[in-house]
Amino acid sequence: MNTASADEPRWLSDEEQRTWRAYMHATTLLEDHLDRQLQRDAGMPHIYYGLLVQLDEAPHRRLRMTELAMHAKITRSRLSHAVARLEGNGWVRREDCPSDKRGQFAVLTDEGREELRRTAPGHVAAVRQAFFDRLTPEQHKALGEAMRLIAEGLEPEGAGADLPWLR
Amino acid sequence: MNTASADEPRWLSDEEQRTWRAYMHATTLLEDHLDRQLQRDAGMPHIYYGLLVQLDEAPHRRLRMTELAMHAKITRSRLSHAVARLEGNGWVRREDCPSDKRGQFAVLTDEGREELRRTAPGHVAAVRQAFFDRLTPEQHKALGEAMRLIAEGLEPEGAGADLPWLR
Repeated sequence: MNTASADEPRWLSDEEQRTWRAYMHATTLLEDHLDRQLQRDAGMPHIYYGLLVQLDEAPHRRLRMTELAMHAKITRSRLSHAVARLEGNGWVRREDCPSDKRGQFAVLTDEGREELRRTAPGHVAAVRQAFFDRLTPEQHKALGEAMRLIAEGLEPEGAGADLPWLR
Repeated sequence: MNTASADEPRWLSDEEQRTWRAYMHATTLLEDHLDRQLQRDAGMPHIYYGLLVQLDEAPHRRLRMTELAMHAKITRSRLSHAVARLEGNGWVRREDCPSDKRGQFAVLTDEGREELRRTAPGHVAAVRQAFFDRLTPEQHKALGEAMRLIAEGLEPEGAGADLPWLR
């Protein structure tokens, strides 16, 4: 008799278990590795570096705080904390939004841009060495595609999703 | 004249850039998603759940603190903090190691095992829905292989590596 039912948890197979653990190990180790590299080189964690990059690529090197949180996939409270630290370093400044009393922009300063220029070569070398250089071009492509599918699933179109920057 | 030199940073190509951003987006969103699910369901972040699983699978449901940090790929200080919280919930207890005055074990309690039983179906459903169900079996396989290669590169055999649990 088959006792499985629709309510029975669909436990992971041994192979799925191995895939999931490899994913957890790689992502945990890589984030630690990149944090260490950037802390050593620039005294900032990886997440802060990503914020500077986002601002550098934005028109006039500025983004609304809510847009910046959305690009970085983090909560607004985590972003506020990060921007306060980056402001303390002189790399970012905040500007009020003239059309919206409650809105604020984050702007990359010249010092912030200079810091990014100085730091980028070491960071890209670390990403290459730990990530791209370990994989064949076919593996990059497959990994990129899988990651896009997972990200899209977690960020559905339309309202109502529990996304960090909407909290 | 070709001005490229060995010192020139090997910047990411547009396709590598897209792969890297998809990786960052997927990993950031997924960790947030699993944290939210476990916080709602059990009042603990994803990392704590992983510690309970490790202990549940260990002989006599106990591991040295240093082994547990190594399995979870985290620093001993982060582990101490987590175990103190889990101890507060009655899910883990610490025991001194009789053969090593400075060593300590973490042990999963009956309450901790019960909590894990209660929480596992919801967690595995979230992992399936956000990760495995988004991908074909070929994509699982490719992703698992890529993640294993990245994890191995960051955890080299032999001494001297800057690994979280050795700090």
